[in-house]
Amino acid sequence: MNQTFNVQGMTCGHCEKAVTQAVQSLDPQAQVRIDRPAGKVDVQSTQPRDAIAKAIAEEGYEVVG
Amino acid sequence: MNQTFNVQGMTCGHCEKAVTQAVQSLDPQAQVRIDRPAGKVDVQSTQPRDAIAKAIAEEGYEVVG
Repeated sequence: MNQTFNVQGMTCGHCEKAVTQAVQSLDPQAQVRIDRPAGKVDVQSTQPRDAIAKAIAEEGYEVVG
Repeated sequence: MNQTFNVQGMTCGHCEKAVTQAVQSLDPQAQVRIDRPAGKVDVQSTQPRDAIAKAIAEEGYEVVG
């Protein structure tokens, strides 16, 4: 299932990696694509939206949608 | 010896860590203090300035002074 999140605070490549790893620690099979300038995180995963959003938020980024 | 570098491109905590680790991989004894909003990196190290600047630059940050 493809899910898109609007995430604030991703400023550099390290941030992209941190968000990707946060999602993949929840679901190692997840595919994550990030458009940093747009603040968009596309996740292909079987995990529920809430769980993915929580994993991103716990990494220190604000999930706004 | 205390040396201050002006560094551009440090946008988040991961960047601070990357710069600190780059300096400490050159000199494990180095003490590194970063003022990210000001773009200042203070390094206490016996290593020459050029070598420290090179280590920071190789991490992907621009040393402008």
